[in-house]
Amino acid sequence: GARHLSGEAVVHDLPVTLEEVMYGCTKQMKITRSRLNSDGRSLRTEEKVLNVVVQKGWKAGTRITFPREGDETPNSPPADITFILRDQDHPQYKRDGSNIIFTAQITLKEALCGCTLNVPTLDNRMMPLPCSNIIKPGEVRRLRGEGLPLPKSQSQRGDLVVEFQVLFPDRIPPQSREIIKHSLGQC
Amino acid sequence: GARHLSGEAVVHDLPVTLEEVMYGCTKQMKITRSRLNSDGRSLRTEEKVLNVVVQKGWKAGTRITFPREGDETPNSPPADITFILRDQDHPQYKRDGSNIIFTAQITLKEALCGCTLNVPTLDNRMMPLPCSNIIKPGEVRRLRGEGLPLPKSQSQRGDLVVEFQVLFPDRIPPQSREIIKHSLGQC
Repeated sequence: GARHLSGEAVVHDLPVTLEEVMYGCTKQMKITRSRLNSDGRSLRTEEKVLNVVVQKGWKAGTRITFPREGDETPNSPPADITFILRDQDHPQYKRDGSNIIFTAQITLKEALCGCTLNVPTLDNRMMPLPCSNIIKPGEVRRLRGEGLPLPKSQSQRGDLVVEFQVLFPDRIPPQSREIIKHSLGQC
Repeated sequence: GARHLSGEAVVHDLPVTLEEVMYGCTKQMKITRSRLNSDGRSLRTEEKVLNVVVQKGWKAGTRITFPREGDETPNSPPADITFILRDQDHPQYKRDGSNIIFTAQITLKEALCGCTLNVPTLDNRMMPLPCSNIIKPGEVRRLRGEGLPLPKSQSQRGDLVVEFQVLFPDRIPPQSREIIKHSLGQC
């Protein structure tokens, strides 16, 4: 016979941190659903914990579906439950696919006269990044392979993209200003 | 009696320059349409010029409809023709609603040591913009009332927003670099 139309699929957000995407994780998600009692007419509400496995490198928008774990009614078999991956904001990085972007704020002096930055990685190391040439505002440097695992090839990783923001001083004393003007004369 | 369903409205792009939006304009748009011959069955193709009036300050997406100027068929009265305003790229400005954005490229020396910019306006004047303080990359200054007319109050105008891009030199000679480093010491 024809299968009953099941109810509306229930959709939940599944927020994940960059660290969870980096290493993969299993998230225990407690759901509430209605189930049919044995009389076939009255409903009860029950809670259940679903183990949602997030693979390394999965992107926002990835859907994980648990068939028939949703609401049941006298007229329809249990609906599916779908979780949709969503990236949580990270205090240090922005995600760009399998790359992560780190904004490095450096002073004008560092931008013009050189410096060695310490760039934090997702696995809690500090990568020294020597900058001897002039760094222009918005310039980027890539630390290859320090990003997130590629979802389709988890042994490979994207890049950590360092994007420079050059902080200008609010003011420069008039004498220094004259000296700088002269020094930048031919540049 | 019931009115015949008219055919599909014909939609055309109406590209306009910022200057045309600034002053308003009438654009002569040549269209091609099919019309019914007097036998009521055969069709002929004819050209017609429509005068499309664009009012000052109109925004992209504004629709101008000419009723019954479109295609006619034996089964339907002439369709409407609709023009939809679209902003053309401008060599100097980007449009942002009733504001226009001008990107001013200045050298690092100008940013740090002051300068007077000449900002071109939409009506072909040069507005001097004195910059005595340090200008930071991405900083904006507004020339109020030098933008586009407001569509709902054409005697008022938006702003000309000057957005600064600071061009760094590719290299600075080592001696100058040392001097600059010292001069920026306390900044």
